[in-house]
Amino acid sequence: MQMYDLINKKKNHGELNKEEIEFIVNGYTKGEIPDYQMSAFLMAVCLNKMTHEETAHLTVAMANSGDMLDLTAIHGVKVDKHSTGGVGDKTSLVLSPMVACLGVPVAKMSGRGLGHTGGTIDKLESIPGFSTSLSPEQFIDNVNRIKMAIVGQTANLAPADKKIYALRDVTATVDNISLIASSIMSKKLASGADVIVLDVKTGSGAFMKKYEDSLALAKEMVQIGTLAGKPTYAVITDMNQPLGRAVGNSIEVIEAIETLSGKGPEDLLEVSVTLASYMLLGAGRVKSPEEGRELLLETIRSGKALDKFAEFVSAQGGDSSFIYNPELFKKASIIYEVKAPEDGYVTDIRTDEIGMASVVLGGGRVTKDSTIDLSVGIVIHKKLGDKVSKNEPIVTLYANDDEKRKEAKKRILNAYVFGKEKPERPPYIYSVVTKDGVLDLR
Amino acid sequence: MQMYDLINKKKNHGELNKEEIEFIVNGYTKGEIPDYQMSAFLMAVCLNKMTHEETAHLTVAMANSGDMLDLTAIHGVKVDKHSTGGVGDKTSLVLSPMVACLGVPVAKMSGRGLGHTGGTIDKLESIPGFSTSLSPEQFIDNVNRIKMAIVGQTANLAPADKKIYALRDVTATVDNISLIASSIMSKKLASGADVIVLDVKTGSGAFMKKYEDSLALAKEMVQIGTLAGKPTYAVITDMNQPLGRAVGNSIEVIEAIETLSGKGPEDLLEVSVTLASYMLLGAGRVKSPEEGRELLLETIRSGKALDKFAEFVSAQGGDSSFIYNPELFKKASIIYEVKAPEDGYVTDIRTDEIGMASVVLGGGRVTKDSTIDLSVGIVIHKKLGDKVSKNEPIVTLYANDDEKRKEAKKRILNAYVFGKEKPERPPYIYSVVTKDGVLDLR
Repeated sequence: MQMYDLINKKKNHGELNKEEIEFIVNGYTKGEIPDYQMSAFLMAVCLNKMTHEETAHLTVAMANSGDMLDLTAIHGVKVDKHSTGGVGDKTSLVLSPMVACLGVPVAKMSGRGLGHTGGTIDKLESIPGFSTSLSPEQFIDNVNRIKMAIVGQTANLAPADKKIYALRDVTATVDNISLIASSIMSKKLASGADVIVLDVKTGSGAFMKKYEDSLALAKEMVQIGTLAGKPTYAVITDMNQPLGRAVGNSIEVIEAIETLSGKGPEDLLEVSVTLASYMLLGAGRVKSPEEGRELLLETIRSGKALDKFAEFVSAQGGDSSFIYNPELFKKASIIYEVKAPEDGYVTDIRTDEIGMASVVLGGGRVTKDSTIDLSVGIVIHKKLGDKVSKNEPIVTLYANDDEKRKEAKKRILNAYVFGKEKPERPPYIYSVVTKDGVLDLR
Repeated sequence: MQMYDLINKKKNHGELNKEEIEFIVNGYTKGEIPDYQMSAFLMAVCLNKMTHEETAHLTVAMANSGDMLDLTAIHGVKVDKHSTGGVGDKTSLVLSPMVACLGVPVAKMSGRGLGHTGGTIDKLESIPGFSTSLSPEQFIDNVNRIKMAIVGQTANLAPADKKIYALRDVTATVDNISLIASSIMSKKLASGADVIVLDVKTGSGAFMKKYEDSLALAKEMVQIGTLAGKPTYAVITDMNQPLGRAVGNSIEVIEAIETLSGKGPEDLLEVSVTLASYMLLGAGRVKSPEEGRELLLETIRSGKALDKFAEFVSAQGGDSSFIYNPELFKKASIIYEVKAPEDGYVTDIRTDEIGMASVVLGGGRVTKDSTIDLSVGIVIHKKLGDKVSKNEPIVTLYANDDEKRKEAKKRILNAYVFGKEKPERPPYIYSVVTKDGVLDLR
């Protein structure tokens, strides 16, 4: 088999079989296929597309390129939840204890933040003493004992994806549904879960700005999971504005605690409960998402979800008094209100700019090696469709450096668009994609 | 300017301007743009095409990447003839002395053979003493004195094309009309001619097998030449079988001599005279190709063309007695007739296989570094549409090694297809493309 012929085949709209795709993925990972052949191939894929079968073969080949985690020692059906990345997205912190309360194990490997989106691991590290690196034995033991553990990714998952992604990033071959879907799903398949629930974000703060693109990505990923034998659900949720009101690290943990205490923002609760209800459905814990919803809301009303969160924090070495007394979290030294420059309604929020304002404050990473300040962040007071008067606060900045505060303020003012007409508010949830089709929830 | 953005632009069907294309060509030639970005760009070009303007900008940028020959010291309008490559194509040897006889200067830089096609430089070197490397001063002096010189390419013409071609060759990005046309024309623009006549081959022995593809390539090249301010004509000629009967080196020179003596094969004479008539037209020497044709045929009848060939050979150090006594050429030691395996008509000749049979005998090169045997070759007795009886000779092989002779015989038998029905013979000339349109000559 020759890489030249496979490039040529894809260029001529041919369909590659499993062996051909494995040849490409393994050859490239081992360095036997040079970058210049791989990039020509990737461009041909971007322009001529891949079939669902080709995409599934690519995903499995990338998943098999490195470690495949074995979670069979964990009792019960292991459900993983993955978000395509958003601003203010702390759903993992909210839904994990709810699901764990109901006896379904949550064995989660999470990432760190990069660019305008934050990461669950960074957020959890704002709790004093909390450790995000457990040994595999500790991890499995914690999940079996208290049904919940969240750690950073240490295994060498899908190295082929890592190498291919780096090449795509410099050759303008990122935005292809098959390549994006296989990149996400290869890591999910390698991470050992039995059922996968995907939170596919759509809107100005998401990787996919348009609903149609998010839907196509969701369908592709559900198809891949299904072909790989893992029940997969994708919930398409709004990212035309930050989820909830807090964007940062400790302040997002605080908002998660408020939500678990029944005092959180409606959008965050709604998205968390919807995702969690599909986790319960996938695990066979409930017969319908509606049944799951009732059980989940009861975990909040009863205080069990908050207790589970505190138990989880303790089990990973964190100080659980912070969970019951969130005022203990370290405060940023500068608290500054950004005010509306005019009267009107909030008609648009460039959500990725809000994410970048948080990065500017020090709360996120520009490159993988940046260090971050866990106490800084942004609290949103005015969301889409809200009425504002001139000089009314639209967001509060929590900063530790006045220069950074000034730069973040600029970005916030650049992100907000005001108008005279009250706009329609976007839905929290757009639709759910399962192997059987699309359920529109708008 | 960033290469990433230019790849992305072409990927999204955008049109690049002159500055952007120069950025790519210069950046890649200097090694500032890596192979993997260039190959992604080339694949995007293959799949999304380039406009005529983009193709012209690419050609000029590649032409400007190295030496630009200055032939202004040569008196008169310099006309270059270029063939896209064929088997048995010795038209340069036939038409150059005819055109020179009529006072139009032929200052030709020619190539060596590679793969299944031969090269004029190799053929000329079969004449004892003939030198294909003259100093620039000698070259110009010869052309001014006797109106004709043919040398090998020594200048660093279009190095960008060379580097880009090498990358296309390993990334399945060869077969795009814009890239092929710009590759040929960049070298032509750099080689200093005022007028360009292109012999675009079509058929089983040509790079373009289908007439429509050859026509598209011809149109693209004429457009490039015209946009670059050089009158350009393209004659589309048949390559469904070798041109003439001889395929090799010395035996092709002998056939050229026979043709200049009025005893050559009709197809070779017709193609040579047609190309030459457009050279005369382009140089302003005649008002119509028909007028040129009469003058050209007269140079053969009068013996002046043959004398000019002998004069040219002498002027470059060759022994001109060989021209008047071609039996002096060194003979191959094995002369072997390949016989028809059945009765019937020749319905198809896989012409590239005939070319490869000559390579196998030692008459051509597999790689750039192969050495060649100038005395070997093939003489074709049966051409398309000819009737053959079983065991009648179809070709004669001239070999110096019996193993190679056997392998060549296999290839010849593989190349010939016989049938019961007499097929239509292909035309010698299909059409002529000028800036004003296509003149169909079938």
